[in-house]
Amino acid sequence: MTQAKPVQVDEQIGWLNKGLGALEQLATSEQIVRLGWNLLREDLSLPAAVLYRDRIEHNLRWMQRFMNAYGARLAPHGKTTMAPRLFQMQIEGGAWGITLASAHQAMVAHAHGVRRVLMANELVGRRNMQVIAELLKDPDFEFYCLVDSAAGVDLLGAFFSERGLSIRVLLELGVMGGRCGVRNEEQLGATLEALARWKGVVDLCGVELYEGVLKDEENIRGFMRRACAVTSELVAQGRFARGPALISGAGSAWYDVVAEEFSAAKFGDPVEIVLRPGCYITHDVGNYEVQQKRILASNPIAREMQSGLVPALHIWTYVQSVPEAELAIVQMGRRDAAFDSGLPTPALHVRPGNTEPQPTSARWEVTKMMDQHAYLKIAPEDDVRVGDMVGFNISHPCLTFDKWRVLSILDEKYNVVDVVQTYF
Amino acid sequence: MTQAKPVQVDEQIGWLNKGLGALEQLATSEQIVRLGWNLLREDLSLPAAVLYRDRIEHNLRWMQRFMNAYGARLAPHGKTTMAPRLFQMQIEGGAWGITLASAHQAMVAHAHGVRRVLMANELVGRRNMQVIAELLKDPDFEFYCLVDSAAGVDLLGAFFSERGLSIRVLLELGVMGGRCGVRNEEQLGATLEALARWKGVVDLCGVELYEGVLKDEENIRGFMRRACAVTSELVAQGRFARGPALISGAGSAWYDVVAEEFSAAKFGDPVEIVLRPGCYITHDVGNYEVQQKRILASNPIAREMQSGLVPALHIWTYVQSVPEAELAIVQMGRRDAAFDSGLPTPALHVRPGNTEPQPTSARWEVTKMMDQHAYLKIAPEDDVRVGDMVGFNISHPCLTFDKWRVLSILDEKYNVVDVVQTYF
Repeated sequence: MTQAKPVQVDEQIGWLNKGLGALEQLATSEQIVRLGWNLLREDLSLPAAVLYRDRIEHNLRWMQRFMNAYGARLAPHGKTTMAPRLFQMQIEGGAWGITLASAHQAMVAHAHGVRRVLMANELVGRRNMQVIAELLKDPDFEFYCLVDSAAGVDLLGAFFSERGLSIRVLLELGVMGGRCGVRNEEQLGATLEALARWKGVVDLCGVELYEGVLKDEENIRGFMRRACAVTSELVAQGRFARGPALISGAGSAWYDVVAEEFSAAKFGDPVEIVLRPGCYITHDVGNYEVQQKRILASNPIAREMQSGLVPALHIWTYVQSVPEAELAIVQMGRRDAAFDSGLPTPALHVRPGNTEPQPTSARWEVTKMMDQHAYLKIAPEDDVRVGDMVGFNISHPCLTFDKWRVLSILDEKYNVVDVVQTYF
Repeated sequence: MTQAKPVQVDEQIGWLNKGLGALEQLATSEQIVRLGWNLLREDLSLPAAVLYRDRIEHNLRWMQRFMNAYGARLAPHGKTTMAPRLFQMQIEGGAWGITLASAHQAMVAHAHGVRRVLMANELVGRRNMQVIAELLKDPDFEFYCLVDSAAGVDLLGAFFSERGLSIRVLLELGVMGGRCGVRNEEQLGATLEALARWKGVVDLCGVELYEGVLKDEENIRGFMRRACAVTSELVAQGRFARGPALISGAGSAWYDVVAEEFSAAKFGDPVEIVLRPGCYITHDVGNYEVQQKRILASNPIAREMQSGLVPALHIWTYVQSVPEAELAIVQMGRRDAAFDSGLPTPALHVRPGNTEPQPTSARWEVTKMMDQHAYLKIAPEDDVRVGDMVGFNISHPCLTFDKWRVLSILDEKYNVVDVVQTYF
């Protein structure tokens, strides 16, 4: 599959975005890099979200190697970053395609040259279907979405048959109390019947699930085995319009377990395994760090590799007030960083004029975030002044990326070496 | 103060934004309106955030009348929406200026024609100060920011004096355990001393506080009285470089109490009262609804007006799965709506083909949101199908607006009559 260069969109970056340096007009990221901005020289308006180039590249290599070891295709979930420049890095690094969550997101990816999209979601609504129908006019565009009900299949069938088009789908499996997906034999049967009615219009190409709705490994392994059994059964029944059929799962927390189960299964015919972690590209210091420790301890492939994923995204900002001996207020709020699965954690501290940020005291802690401010607990003896710069790690990349329209990529000297745009 | 029309920015709307209808290229909102999109005809890609024109206009009038009754200036907090088209409606409706939270936000407002900005925050950092210094080259631009420490005043003084500029500031008062602001006489004295050192460069024009860090009315009234006393004292000492001096407070929850206290105070010289609620423009069905009930019950001015603020922002989306008798999954997640002070609440339900959305059952409830999905609890007897459209009220406008780059404004027939862009 050739990955065409982006041709449909204007990649220029607007001067009214937050987190940038001085820009008087629209500029490409290449033009911006030539301006020579440096974070530590205070060239950026803080707060700013930054990515560290070497860490991003490390994480890209790490996950691709992991997937290769299991013979699995990597289709990173692009909803995490919605940054087509990062999609491109993922594809150039060996990814099979990009996973996305909505018709809008698929449109963004296609406009930026992505030619294989797994929309790990049901496609519903007239305008959303129109968006996908438009993309399918491109003969090089390979697209899959999910179905989990006869009603959904019928809506797709009616829309696409009317336009003389066909659409490829994966059957989504689910669990009671979970999100989407067929729960039982009755729902499965009804969905397959609907697919049979719309043969040639709605083409069943595989089986999909999202294990992240379950919380413990045993249940997840059980769910995977059910998915493998359903897939084998459908292979045996000749239900798939694609050869090999696809089996897809895996968020950013349990991809190791999914890889183990899927790669150990016997499906009869060959089946292509497509796994979809998304957060690995920046990793975090929160839930995914916890999961990564588990993976490094338990997974033989991960153990073999020299190091694990590393946090690659920081929010840098200023201390704007030190109103109490144990309290600094920094300019970073719920408008700048995720707060849904842990608050940001202080990482680096530097006073303007210095070029070597120091690790922050282990005592420091963000205790609260408002829309535009965070409360940073310090100790009275800590040397913290108004105007100091602090870099924070984050927990949950997805809800941090969507706070930023541009993120700078930095080299090890904190020079801006690229700027990526997001399209949320 | 004349409000110049926006001249510095390209107001065109990109076709890759979520929540829009079919758009093949950049278009102005006027061009988009001529396309005749209608929400109920499924012309928009859902999820979409929409504003109801009549409700927005009602809320604008309501708050301006409230402020006028107290002789207070309204400087709505623009960080809520970051939508310059809404800023313009606020200013045309009588607002004195726009409040903002950062140098970036001030730049956005200025670029769109706003000529009086109260940055209700400390200005820290070289690039942030440069942004403001650039704006101050415009002789029609009136700008205030906050100071709460000698260190902060010194940094401003050094930066602006070096460039032969001066900057107007308000002294921020704070409370122990609160956010920014001087806590005590010692901090107050040190800040005033620094201001005296930088006379002619850092000009003290008033006093500011944010009462929203306190949770009960009695403490808030006490804080207001302290602010009035400090202001009177500074008036008596001739500390202000502006006549009349400013006194400013009020978020979206306690503006009535602040208006009462400030308007009842005796300052010696005339003092201009500047209040800064921001969420009133869309209101919500959450914390601000609770506060509004209190205000309507207790405030004489609010009681006189015929109705209170009304919720003016909905997220519309599709049911994508009904996998269990009491569970529907809708395409709306933490990427689309605030979830920090209550989840969205179902409001309207319509099946495509119908033109009259019906109020949703009181039994329906959002029980959980993931990044791109919400779990909607229904009853087995409810008529809910895949492909149905549901409109949701939200709690906390600020963290909903920042999920959207464009929001459509609808008339009472759900026609798109305007499109506003945000600049987060």
